[in-house]
Order: sequence, then structure tokens, then C-alpha cells
Amino acid sequence: MQQEIPLNFVVIILGVDPGSRVTGYGVVRTDGGRHECLTYGCIRRARVQDLPHSLRNIYDTLNSVLAEYRPDVIAVESLFHAANAKSALVLGHARGIILLCAATHDIPLHEYSPLEIKKAVVGYGRAEKAQLQQMAKLLLGLKQIPEPHDAADALAIAVCHAHCQEFQNRISRGKIPYR
Amino acid sequence: MQQEIPLNFVVIILGVDPGSRVTGYGVVRTDGGRHECLTYGCIRRARVQDLPHSLRNIYDTLNSVLAEYRPDVIAVESLFHAANAKSALVLGHARGIILLCAATHDIPLHEYSPLEIKKAVVGYGRAEKAQLQQMAKLLLGLKQIPEPHDAADALAIAVCHAHCQEFQNRISRGKIPYR
Repeated sequence: MQQEIPLNFVVIILGVDPGSRVTGYGVVRTDGGRHECLTYGCIRRARVQDLPHSLRNIYDTLNSVLAEYRPDVIAVESLFHAANAKSALVLGHARGIILLCAATHDIPLHEYSPLEIKKAVVGYGRAEKAQLQQMAKLLLGLKQIPEPHDAADALAIAVCHAHCQEFQNRISRGKIPYR
Repeated sequence: MQQEIPLNFVVIILGVDPGSRVTGYGVVRTDGGRHECLTYGCIRRARVQDLPHSLRNIYDTLNSVLAEYRPDVIAVESLFHAANAKSALVLGHARGIILLCAATHDIPLHEYSPLEIKKAVVGYGRAEKAQLQQMAKLLLGLKQIPEPHDAADALAIAVCHAHCQEFQNRISRGKIPYR
């Protein structure tokens, strides 16, 4: 178990990876250097479930996570350019619910591209899903690889935000000269 | 003013036309043959407003309309195939909120393609926006053309559902032989 991070420096980040069938989420507590995983999981759309009720399921689950862990920030994958129009539209439905949750709870939202996430977590923009899972396990000191990969992706998004935020903080504290 | 429709036969339909900048809505009361417009309007995204808060605006406004008019059914445009992936994704966000509202209030949702809507309202699948506005005015006995066209589109979606539903009812009552 990772050493507990003192409360006065911590930021709690909710990472969410929306999908048309599975939406992953993960909550990470960080002081910038050390990260601790508070919870992770995924919200599946049942085969028999219609889209409106699967969206309500995402909304209710995320609201429970927000109420329990009270994150300071939500991090989510930015607009997904590679998809075709139809899959982008279905993905947009789930993403809309996440954005609504952020606005309802007045939590700032940050977006990162898949490339940024992989670079921040694995160090390589074209990393495989398995590498991302392995790095999420290592960086968060988990005993096992986070499954399914949607949950690992969500944790990776949260860790990506932690890294980017820490980098920004160091710039603002003058530790890294900004050119 | 149109003659009031007796309450025991009426269906109240909320039509919604989601858009990336403007979402139109319209509430229509119908007995199958006669339609009455209860309200219509649009929800605009302010230029300075971020996407999460504009989605919350859609969610709050639709919830108010649902609470005030208690529609029996929500009708919405079906997946829009012509858009590119990015505009489809943004459109999907707004559409996700409408579907969430339907699930939250446990109201059945029906979807119609732009072609079906135009055919049902104007009688021609490639009708112009102005024709749709004109027909919405005529069919609903409005004193003026519903503006903006997003609200007229929403009313047209509601009227389209009224027509399709009435057709289904006649089939089930055996007035139109179903081949």
C-alpha cells in the first residue's frame, strides 16, 4: 500500500473514459508526485438496455462516485477524431452525460487527447492498451492490473491530468523555465 | 384559436431538435386529427458558455418543460448520418441530454429521420426549412410562423409523431388494412 498522501496538498481527480458500450471511471488522489487509486470501475450497457436507460445508468453511477469521492476535477478524453460519424454520435451521448455531471456539480473539466494520455503515462504516444494497463498498475501501486481496460484507461486519464497539472505548477513556481 | 381537444383522448408530445448551438423544443397536444401547440422555444448556447454548462442549460430547461407540460412521449430526430465525425460528436452531446431526460422521467422516446419528418409534415422529403415552418404554423393553427426554425423543427417532429401514431392506431383499429 502506498504511503498516505497528506490531505492539505492533495487533489482528487476523476478520470472518465466514455464508450458506446462501456464507460470506465477511476478516482486518483495525488500530491503531484505520488498517486493513489481510490476506486475504479466500469459502467456497462446491457445488451437488452435501450440507450436512454444506459445513459441514465452512467448519470446515476457518476453522481454516486462524485458524491462519495468529491473530486476536485474531472479529466476526460478529448474529441475523438478517428471515428466515423455514427460511432462518434453514439460516443457523444455518453460524453454529454459526463459533461453534464461536471456542470451540475460545478467541477472543472479538463480534456486530453489519446496521444497526450499515452505520452504522459507510458511515455509513448502509440502505446498499446496492455502497456497502459501495466503503467496504471505501476504508477498507482495497485496489486493487480486494472480490468477491464476501460477502467485502466480512465485511471490513465486521471494520472495524465496529475502529471500535466504538476508540470503546470512547477512552471508557475519557476522550477522549470518556460520558454 | 383552435377548438379545445377533450382531455380523455389527447396525447401530449414533446418534440426536440438538438443542435450544437441551438436546441429547439415544442409541445403539441393532439387527438390524432387535431393538433394544438402548447408551447415552443429554443435553448441557445451563449458564445462565452462552455459546453458542460450549455448542456446543463438544456437539461434544466427540458426538465422544466417536462414538469410543466407532463408529455406522454418525447419525439426526437434519429441519428444524423450526413455529419462529419466531429460535428456528430458535438451533436451527440446535446442528444444524450434529451435521452437522459426521457429515461429520468420514464417517458417513451420515438425517433424519426429528417426524411420521415418532412414527409409527414410537408408531404415531401426534401422540403426546405421555410416550408416546414409554414406547415407547422398551418397544422397547429398558430398566428405566426414559429421562430427560430429550430423551434419549428421541434414542432414538426412532434406533429410527425402525432401523424405516425394516428396511422398506427388506425391500423390497430382495423381502419386501414395492413398488408
